[in-house]
Amino acid sequence: MKRKGLLIVVSGPSGAGKGTICKDFLELNKDVLISISTTTRKPREGEQEGISYHFTTKDHFESLVRENALLEYVHVFDNYYGTPKDWVLSRLEEGKDVLLEIEIVGAMKVKEKYSDAVLVFVLPPSIKELKNRIVNRGTENLDQIEKRMERALEEIRTIEKYDYFILNDNLAKAVNDLEAIVAAEKSKVSRYSMEIVKSYEEEK
Amino acid sequence: MKRKGLLIVVSGPSGAGKGTICKDFLELNKDVLISISTTTRKPREGEQEGISYHFTTKDHFESLVRENALLEYVHVFDNYYGTPKDWVLSRLEEGKDVLLEIEIVGAMKVKEKYSDAVLVFVLPPSIKELKNRIVNRGTENLDQIEKRMERALEEIRTIEKYDYFILNDNLAKAVNDLEAIVAAEKSKVSRYSMEIVKSYEEEK
Repeated sequence: MKRKGLLIVVSGPSGAGKGTICKDFLELNKDVLISISTTTRKPREGEQEGISYHFTTKDHFESLVRENALLEYVHVFDNYYGTPKDWVLSRLEEGKDVLLEIEIVGAMKVKEKYSDAVLVFVLPPSIKELKNRIVNRGTENLDQIEKRMERALEEIRTIEKYDYFILNDNLAKAVNDLEAIVAAEKSKVSRYSMEIVKSYEEEK
Repeated sequence: MKRKGLLIVVSGPSGAGKGTICKDFLELNKDVLISISTTTRKPREGEQEGISYHFTTKDHFESLVRENALLEYVHVFDNYYGTPKDWVLSRLEEGKDVLLEIEIVGAMKVKEKYSDAVLVFVLPPSIKELKNRIVNRGTENLDQIEKRMERALEEIRTIEKYDYFILNDNLAKAVNDLEAIVAAEKSKVSRYSMEIVKSYEEEK
């Protein structure tokens, strides 16, 4: 039975811990590929081309947008970030599973363009805990933190557009939940029903 | 967040191995309850009331059917087999997960009456392997075996009405798949989306 790969989109409010969950998940599931985003942001120290990001110019990025070469993109703080469409779709055709760790807005766009995508929302244990994490980072003032909390709540309100949620109150449990979601999606009859029946009929 | 229990229905052709998968699954997941069927069949040696089955009379069973007290029932070789509705629905309301291991026809009826049920189809590795297993049991003649194979293929053709399939070519993997399905179903946004949003809004 030939299987197309799964497109797994992990998203959620900043600070909910999606990055750590994805990192641990990928270490345990070496066969799942991560999509590297393209960005116009300047590389920070230690960041490598093709590993952290594909770095490019604003002009080139805008040409990618015009050519519909991105599965999704966002414009944040004067920088673009996007997901290369061809690379992702080719890996899926080959039967490879691909993980995207992206922002809420991007996740919605991916679902529009590729309805088979599996959308996973990472929830913080509580708004209070989310606030603690941001406060402890020490990179933002109180006003910015309040705005971020408002935004997190706004984002949680979009959860009904997602397929699954993961409550990140325990990292190992959260990674396990993501693994279960991927395994269960591969057991869904709706993805393969005709091929299943055919394979048994042909055998007869 | 209050959660209703999951109703997990495991079904599939006779000989595909659903019984063994369910037994191993229940041993690893002590919090999941198994529903005991009611039957008019006479107890076999070693079978105990309330453990193997609830044994009852034909008259009483037919009154249960009239009172709509069964989630599903079938009539096989002059015996009735059914699933007590009240017991199952009460456990689900309490938040307990309930497993049913039943025939294809019964599974369809459960889905009609309780659309939240999760239907899992256990597939044999191949028709050939299914035949080997039945032949090795040594309880049926060649003609009966051929009929059983025809029926198995007919049953596999109903798979599109199921939510998930499990290919039983490796018992441990099959049990794992069932565990992943149960975990993923509990992570589905569609089951809880309003409660999730509310719980974060109330906290603010």
